[in-house]
Amino acid sequence: MSVRDTAVLAKEGARKLAALNGETKNRALEEIRLALSSRREEIFAANGKDLERSRKENLAAPLMKRLTFDQSKLDEVMTGIASLIALDDPVGKRLKATELDRGLNLYQVACPIGVIGMIFESRPDALVQIATLCLKSGNGVLLKGGSEAKETNRVLADIIGEASAKAGCPAGWIQLVESREEVQEMLGLDGLIDLIIPRGSNSFVQYIMKNSNIPVMGHADGICHVYVDEKADPDKAVPIVVDSKTQYVAVCNALETLLIHRSVAPFLLPRLREALEAKQVELRGCEETRRIIDVKAAGESDWETEYLDYILSIKVVGSLDEAIDHIHRYGSGHTDAIVTEDRGTAEEFMNRVDTADVFWNCSTRFADGFRFGLGAEVGISTAKIHARGPVGMEGLMIYKWRLYGDGHIVEDYSSGRKQFTHRPLS
Amino acid sequence: MSVRDTAVLAKEGARKLAALNGETKNRALEEIRLALSSRREEIFAANGKDLERSRKENLAAPLMKRLTFDQSKLDEVMTGIASLIALDDPVGKRLKATELDRGLNLYQVACPIGVIGMIFESRPDALVQIATLCLKSGNGVLLKGGSEAKETNRVLADIIGEASAKAGCPAGWIQLVESREEVQEMLGLDGLIDLIIPRGSNSFVQYIMKNSNIPVMGHADGICHVYVDEKADPDKAVPIVVDSKTQYVAVCNALETLLIHRSVAPFLLPRLREALEAKQVELRGCEETRRIIDVKAAGESDWETEYLDYILSIKVVGSLDEAIDHIHRYGSGHTDAIVTEDRGTAEEFMNRVDTADVFWNCSTRFADGFRFGLGAEVGISTAKIHARGPVGMEGLMIYKWRLYGDGHIVEDYSSGRKQFTHRPLS
Repeated sequence: MSVRDTAVLAKEGARKLAALNGETKNRALEEIRLALSSRREEIFAANGKDLERSRKENLAAPLMKRLTFDQSKLDEVMTGIASLIALDDPVGKRLKATELDRGLNLYQVACPIGVIGMIFESRPDALVQIATLCLKSGNGVLLKGGSEAKETNRVLADIIGEASAKAGCPAGWIQLVESREEVQEMLGLDGLIDLIIPRGSNSFVQYIMKNSNIPVMGHADGICHVYVDEKADPDKAVPIVVDSKTQYVAVCNALETLLIHRSVAPFLLPRLREALEAKQVELRGCEETRRIIDVKAAGESDWETEYLDYILSIKVVGSLDEAIDHIHRYGSGHTDAIVTEDRGTAEEFMNRVDTADVFWNCSTRFADGFRFGLGAEVGISTAKIHARGPVGMEGLMIYKWRLYGDGHIVEDYSSGRKQFTHRPLS
Repeated sequence: MSVRDTAVLAKEGARKLAALNGETKNRALEEIRLALSSRREEIFAANGKDLERSRKENLAAPLMKRLTFDQSKLDEVMTGIASLIALDDPVGKRLKATELDRGLNLYQVACPIGVIGMIFESRPDALVQIATLCLKSGNGVLLKGGSEAKETNRVLADIIGEASAKAGCPAGWIQLVESREEVQEMLGLDGLIDLIIPRGSNSFVQYIMKNSNIPVMGHADGICHVYVDEKADPDKAVPIVVDSKTQYVAVCNALETLLIHRSVAPFLLPRLREALEAKQVELRGCEETRRIIDVKAAGESDWETEYLDYILSIKVVGSLDEAIDHIHRYGSGHTDAIVTEDRGTAEEFMNRVDTADVFWNCSTRFADGFRFGLGAEVGISTAKIHARGPVGMEGLMIYKWRLYGDGHIVEDYSSGRKQFTHRPLS
């Protein structure tokens, strides 16, 4: 079956799924939970094959760990499904209600987007999370997982499709896409796939964004900044910088460039160096930084690099303006923080910095759907439309306009025989 | 100056505009209103040149009319600006507030998208509407108007730029793009232009959608349907079909294909023919239609054509399912209506039809920002993300996440020393 045929099936399934009520979808989620548990040996066996093949192919240890789907992963995804069941049905939520005229009522009502093309990495547990999120939100899904996990992914997709069908979900809403070439085909399916959500390396995400007319939700880079202002409290600045940089270096919300105000640099940079070097962070500084602390030189390319590693670039700036200009020039619009005791400066920073997450006196590492309390996280977006920053299930929703009339025609209004009331309805 | 340089200026201006308070923006709108009035002779003179040139170039009469910017058009745009001033500032509106932990508060706050690339047709009054909408919503704008209106557009853009600067708006937020070739350049400016809103012919909009990685908000086709159900009230069905088709034929929300249930077709089609032919509508029917009324034959291509003219295609269907399948196969996701006295059928239609506007017992012509009570209309979107159907000023908005802490770091939470509260704030 071609990817196009697969997408057609997903579209048909999605349209039926969109019209299901919340109880049916919750029953399907419960069936999936039960089936995952009762068929766990089958899942573990498939995962064993993936692990064995990958071991022979010398897959790196961290990837082997991500690939593993064992009882503890199963428990995690089952807990995730239970919390999804507990959520209100997002479909049909009334966003706005207006009486246009007597007997002519307009409702803006939340509905699913349609078919989501999800491209994710080796973790098979992500497949379950994504698929169940799509089910709850009424979206069909084309799933492309890592080829390392293909046996596990097949069993999981199979279980989810069968179990959800048992509860009355339409066939076809969940589809697996397996090869790299098929991704290329996916990118051309405008009109069948409504939104692509890629997770993977920067260059991969960038490639997808450049090579598809389908809207893409995600982020390529995460070049995050902390600006330590002249009014910063050193006892907040040091832990915030250390946490932002080192709490987990390999992620998009980790700090990459520290901006520090000239007036506090001589006093604070030595303290920061001590704390960061204790965590094995390599520092690279601008010239002015290097006149204060003895570190490697940072070049132009450092400002535009997402290290994802124990490396931090440092630049001394003379003003808030200069800090903001640097962020706009080199940042990726992901997360930028200011450390200051001056509320006015903080508000100005947060007003002016054009970034999804603007933080005051806290670590950039808070930029995350779980920490934000969004429930399940669909991803993090640096787009400027639809959804921005950490995105929960509402990122999989759009709305339609439902207009209820009783024979109303426009001619009556354009001729002046009738007038619109445009009264908000409660 | 290249289009890229222009867009850089707009981006810089937009970032400053985004941080302005509502009073400053309203003062700027008031200055624009005053300047348009005091410099009206200059505007009319420029418009005179455009009209003269276009007359020599034999511009069609309807386009000449759209090109005209006279006192009555001036009055209209001035009224529009006054109503914009009366609206609340959309920037800074709090969409969500959550306490993540004591002293760590998260706010989701509305903010402008950034730089809008607006491509519109010959009407110079559209330039004023769009520019003032962008100003109120804090967005920079690159405006590409029709070349027929170039003299008028220049004067208007000039007035708006100068008058807004007088009130403290940043230079550069409004930029004019003049040639067709420059549109091509605009399409490649990802990262500088955040959203393109094209208005124009279907093929032009489609071209833009296919040839840019910048998100596009708009619609290419408007292939709208009315489905007359077996439980339709004939006294509602006939006026709704006539109004949907003929109230204004040259627009995207006009009816193009009538679907009618087999059980009412023999009785209703003759009545519909009489009413439609009285309005000079040419009918084209499927075979079954033609066994009931003597009309031209409709072929496959009719179902996928947006006539924008006094032509209507008609298809007899055997069920709601068949009607919905036809709409999903040939429709453009713009506006589709059902005529029925059965509320259950109506709800099923509105749940299942995957279209921006789903209407019950009223004309498709209601699909319009003004009629929906949205205030100024930015456009109509058939996209599946961000904004759908008639789009008001909220289509020019996105949000950012503002997190207020007091030295909070993530390590405290991942180590278990602290717990998130995730409590909604009022």
